[in-house]
Amino acid sequence: MAPQDRFVSETTFRIRYAETDAMGITHHSNYIVFFEEARSHYSRVRGADYADFERSGHWLTVAEVHARYLAPTHYAQQVTARCWIEELRSRGMTFGYEIVDAASGQVCVTGLSKHVCINHAGQVTRIPEDWLAAMRAGVPD
Amino acid sequence: MAPQDRFVSETTFRIRYAETDAMGITHHSNYIVFFEEARSHYSRVRGADYADFERSGHWLTVAEVHARYLAPTHYAQQVTARCWIEELRSRGMTFGYEIVDAASGQVCVTGLSKHVCINHAGQVTRIPEDWLAAMRAGVPD
Amino acid sequence: MAPQDRFVSETTFRIRYAETDAMGITHHSNYIVFFEEARSHYSRVRGADYADFERSGHWLTVAEVHARYLAPTHYAQQVTARCWIEELRSRGMTFGYEIVDAASGQVCVTGLSKHVCINHAGQVTRIPEDWLAAMRAGVPD
Amino acid sequence: MAPQDRFVSETTFRIRYAETDAMGITHHSNYIVFFEEARSHYSRVRGADYADFERSGHWLTVAEVHARYLAPTHYAQQVTARCWIEELRSRGMTFGYEIVDAASGQVCVTGLSKHVCINHAGQVTRIPEDWLAAMRAGVPD
Repeated sequence: MAPQDRFVSETTFRIRYAETDAMGITHHSNYIVFFEEARSHYSRVRGADYADFERSGHWLTVAEVHARYLAPTHYAQQVTARCWIEELRSRGMTFGYEIVDAASGQVCVTGLSKHVCINHAGQVTRIPEDWLAAMRAGVPD
Repeated sequence: MAPQDRFVSETTFRIRYAETDAMGITHHSNYIVFFEEARSHYSRVRGADYADFERSGHWLTVAEVHARYLAPTHYAQQVTARCWIEELRSRGMTFGYEIVDAASGQVCVTGLSKHVCINHAGQVTRIPEDWLAAMRAGVPD
Repeated sequence: MAPQDRFVSETTFRIRYAETDAMGITHHSNYIVFFEEARSHYSRVRGADYADFERSGHWLTVAEVHARYLAPTHYAQQVTARCWIEELRSRGMTFGYEIVDAASGQVCVTGLSKHVCINHAGQVTRIPEDWLAAMRAGVPD
Repeated sequence: MAPQDRFVSETTFRIRYAETDAMGITHHSNYIVFFEEARSHYSRVRGADYADFERSGHWLTVAEVHARYLAPTHYAQQVTARCWIEELRSRGMTFGYEIVDAASGQVCVTGLSKHVCINHAGQVTRIPEDWLAAMRAGVPD
């Protein structure tokens, strides 16, 4: 369940036909992409665009991803991808996710992803201060 | 260029990070998915949902696809996918597409796809009359 | 690390350009697809083809997936996807995975996926006996 | 039909489950990826690796792609992707493709892609001479 004590972003979109598989449902790998899109949206609505983050010479590389599948989704279904910060540290962070049916609110998939900040030389480094501040504003003290 | 004498649908969305490639741009195969999403949107706004079309026992199978790449798009860029009917026949149809930068209107990719109506046994068949009527309303007499 | 007390399948393939992203590396969502391909290969080499499994009226639906990213892979790199059974029960199973550089053996990504057997009506059911037997032969008593 | 007067490369692989869609067949967008993999393979077997081509500061950007779908393919099916050079110029080239069932040889999809050589600043430039020579060896005088 999405937490109540912190900022939770929401972005809604439809399942594409190309995202379905021969079971007639959304292929499970696509939710990993939806998670990514959800955290892109999170940083955008917090005024800390990830495209700028990259242009500043950093990457928030993916160290770990986890997804739990509770209910399938189907072509053309509107889903809402919720995203929040689970944990924030100076050199990395963990996002939490929930993909829900946009109409009923039924939770279909939950997940989390762990990230490490690296520079374009591949070295682990501190998250830039302004970006970190924007993220910090979304979590409880 | 999108034609002026017929209905042109528009749907706007952002390029996902997963859709980029090592050139730093949107991988060319994704535009084929954007075309599909554009024609899904077309039929939806014409009141002739493709999900219903499938449930009626039909598929609009893809016989041919063509894309011309004029300018690259990038992560987080908002693009508008325009779609219209190039040609409509009783057993098939051709859609035209244009993917443009949502802000500037610059045309990035153009394309078309040809489709044949088949039933779930795989036989070529007539497009169901109500769906055909909805499509016909979008093209000049 | 791949276990030594049970059967471990291996399939080797190259990273496709379309699988890279703007970081210049394989996008993390693709490893979920590689895991799937690895378990397809596992059942195939055990003589228990998943395509037959589906034709028998069953699906091995994905309940959970987890991946840990240790090192990036790049376009054209040959990787070996290793797969083994972590746990086998009558109605579900867990596969373990390792994606390694085919040349050096460096472990790049590890993961697991949990599955539940359902019939085509969506009900949880026992894994068909012949398929289960083929899987059982790959794990220690 | 693949031409008889020039070099035709072949690479064989299986359709992945993730590549199927709700029609139960390989989603049409994936063949665009198969084409790319086929031309990667072509240059590799000609001793003119595309990864090296990129490292030399060039990209063979995609200007146009066309696919014609003749027969569907399915999960786990082995397909052979054939690739040849349709046309070779100093600043660009056209590849032709054929995706066939590996067992029966039935042609499932045909296509072509047109490419322009650019440098990493995005300017159209000549294909590097050694790479061009390797390609030229694959076409009739």
